[in-house]
Amino acid sequence: MQPVNVGVIGLGNVGSGALQILAENADQISQKLGFPLRVAAVCSRNVADKTLPSGLNSPLRTTNWREIVDHPEIQIVAELVGGTTVAREIICAAAAKGKSVVTANKELMALMGAELWDQAIASQINLAMEASVAGGIPIHAVLREGISGDRITALYGILNGTCNYILTEIEQRGAAFADVLREAQAAGYAEADPSADVDGMDARSKLAILSALAFGERIVPSDIYMEGIRRIDPIDFGYAHMLKHTIRLICTARQTSQGLILSVRPSLLPQSAILANVRGAYNAIWVKGFYGADTFYYGRGAGPHPTGVAVVSDLMRVAREIRSGSPERVSPFAHARLGEYQPISIALQQSAYYLRFRVKDRPGIIAELAAALAAEKISIEAVLQLPEANAANLPFVITVEPTSEQSVQNALARMAKMEFLVEPPLAMPIEVPLA
Amino acid sequence: MQPVNVGVIGLGNVGSGALQILAENADQISQKLGFPLRVAAVCSRNVADKTLPSGLNSPLRTTNWREIVDHPEIQIVAELVGGTTVAREIICAAAAKGKSVVTANKELMALMGAELWDQAIASQINLAMEASVAGGIPIHAVLREGISGDRITALYGILNGTCNYILTEIEQRGAAFADVLREAQAAGYAEADPSADVDGMDARSKLAILSALAFGERIVPSDIYMEGIRRIDPIDFGYAHMLKHTIRLICTARQTSQGLILSVRPSLLPQSAILANVRGAYNAIWVKGFYGADTFYYGRGAGPHPTGVAVVSDLMRVAREIRSGSPERVSPFAHARLGEYQPISIALQQSAYYLRFRVKDRPGIIAELAAALAAEKISIEAVLQLPEANAANLPFVITVEPTSEQSVQNALARMAKMEFLVEPPLAMPIEVPLA
Repeated sequence: MQPVNVGVIGLGNVGSGALQILAENADQISQKLGFPLRVAAVCSRNVADKTLPSGLNSPLRTTNWREIVDHPEIQIVAELVGGTTVAREIICAAAAKGKSVVTANKELMALMGAELWDQAIASQINLAMEASVAGGIPIHAVLREGISGDRITALYGILNGTCNYILTEIEQRGAAFADVLREAQAAGYAEADPSADVDGMDARSKLAILSALAFGERIVPSDIYMEGIRRIDPIDFGYAHMLKHTIRLICTARQTSQGLILSVRPSLLPQSAILANVRGAYNAIWVKGFYGADTFYYGRGAGPHPTGVAVVSDLMRVAREIRSGSPERVSPFAHARLGEYQPISIALQQSAYYLRFRVKDRPGIIAELAAALAAEKISIEAVLQLPEANAANLPFVITVEPTSEQSVQNALARMAKMEFLVEPPLAMPIEVPLA
Repeated sequence: MQPVNVGVIGLGNVGSGALQILAENADQISQKLGFPLRVAAVCSRNVADKTLPSGLNSPLRTTNWREIVDHPEIQIVAELVGGTTVAREIICAAAAKGKSVVTANKELMALMGAELWDQAIASQINLAMEASVAGGIPIHAVLREGISGDRITALYGILNGTCNYILTEIEQRGAAFADVLREAQAAGYAEADPSADVDGMDARSKLAILSALAFGERIVPSDIYMEGIRRIDPIDFGYAHMLKHTIRLICTARQTSQGLILSVRPSLLPQSAILANVRGAYNAIWVKGFYGADTFYYGRGAGPHPTGVAVVSDLMRVAREIRSGSPERVSPFAHARLGEYQPISIALQQSAYYLRFRVKDRPGIIAELAAALAAEKISIEAVLQLPEANAANLPFVITVEPTSEQSVQNALARMAKMEFLVEPPLAMPIEVPLA
């Protein structure tokens, strides 16, 4: 049978992984589809130096992406260059030429997924982006089809593998954040500039896409409250364990009667929760459906092969839809009635909290902190001090009963003037048990 | 926009759950699809007594399923009656009339999924069966689309919620199997005749469907080795915990160089495995892909609403495909080259094993058992006896290093003649850690 022809733009990690799968797995792909998927052209700035996997049937090589987009035989363009400038040009140019697009671009889809999808619909092309979030987890297929009949009420994700790896190492070895980060950089698990990972921007982009898909609402990264993991110390795991909890960078999107609460922040999770058992560079997503109750999805968050599987699976689906002449009809970003799931301020979040203090010891400290909490009508649940915490700056913890984030922020503002604090208190929400 | 019309046959738990979702969630479904999904007719033996959810727009009610299949406006038939006789007639008649089919029928799809799919393709209709396995987990969407680019090498499932509930209760409360079963029956978690659940047939049907989808091979229940959970005793959890393991009814499909090993049997799992943390009436599936590595899926295995979500999501997908005129082209049951994934005998399985004995005490017992193992070249790893096991019949355990199932069966045959055994030894494989 006639193949469907694909052009791959970008031969970095993801592009190389996808090409390898397309070459090695060609027989099985063709058997599953009923027709072959053929890589007709590849594009990269240094395409001349690239060794392509054997079995690809000598695709056209070019350094000019427009050659791929303009190629008369190519039906699907895989945009795997990343970033938000050239990638956007590629997608728009491909759509204008009536070519379908598969992308792994998280930043771009988080920033302007809804607009690009509108353009795809207007151009009657297919647009697919399984690889843009949680590489190895087919969460788009799940939300788009698998549980599309449900009404999602909340999702909780571990969406940054680097942060989860660092937190797991701090937990298991008691090593300091800075030391673990340095090792992770040396081992290639973290970037030289780690900010996008450890400060939460990467996870925030992913949450923006996932919550747009789950709630059918336009959500952009700036709608999402964000805190990174730089302040997490081994002592915090000591206290979390005392409370039978652990600490993870949790991405949350939760429907409330007032609207959607969206956040990326280190949070305490009960050790018995399956999500708390996600260790190392894995990603995971817990979904609460109004009808289907809890479902959970887990897999590698990145890597050439897991993300390559997502790209190839998207290419297969789009190829099947091209063969049957069915372009996307409804944007996954905007099926909700406007306003039903509007993002609201994190200040409205209700939760129990963990507050960790470092102080210069003197009498009356607890009394002053307790007074600041009482002034905001916050009830103390427990005051904890580990034996080993008697060393420098006496790190100790106060947990408080469920209250609003606004009240906690007000109390922290009151505490800001207290001269005995060595650093601002660290506040983390304590998540309720899932399932 | 014009609706796509659906006829629902069978108004039991699943049918009622699906109807409720179709009625209550109609707006969101219509927004996601771009057109409404309309329940045009319902069929049940006692349809006159049924209260239908409001908002359904007075569908035709009938006790004769042929009226639904012959109805000129109905485009999709939901077969939710179960069983393998009438259900089969319904699906064949619907296909012959050019109507697409959504089914929740595990027994029928396990027995003749490949044949029904061939007929669906010949009739150019769509056939969908998300609800037939692990109700709330969208595993079909995952295997069909989400990770379709990967090459599955193994899957491990907890596919029977009743068994998992019973095992969890034995583990947590130390109660006997018979007592927990009786309570589960009283609470409605287990059937009056529990055999399909506790003897493994239900899980085996599900594994047949899942492994057919995962490996693209025709697999029927009789290809699968099966043991139920009736012999699992609280003392087995005592020993499993000593070994830092737990016990679950594990459904396995694993590719080896010789072919596919397929089994449903109680097995030891390391406590650190995420799969070991699946408690109560939940289902879960661990998938190993050659490229994508490990992914994991978890959710409710049954219930009107979780299974209803699967039915409604299938109806939405099929409606979308009908609207765009694209019938299924390739059977999910038979994309593999013949023979690549042929089922082979469980005798070829390699694993470490747990062997539990009950004996009338006398000197020389361990020596005789050890001699039987040595005669089959099986190496003993450990001999374990819990203090509390000194009571009746001295239950104790021998764990052995990896060997073949055949060797273990041979050793058990040698032991069958030993007069000190109160009952045949209980043998369970010890699974290697996943991820």
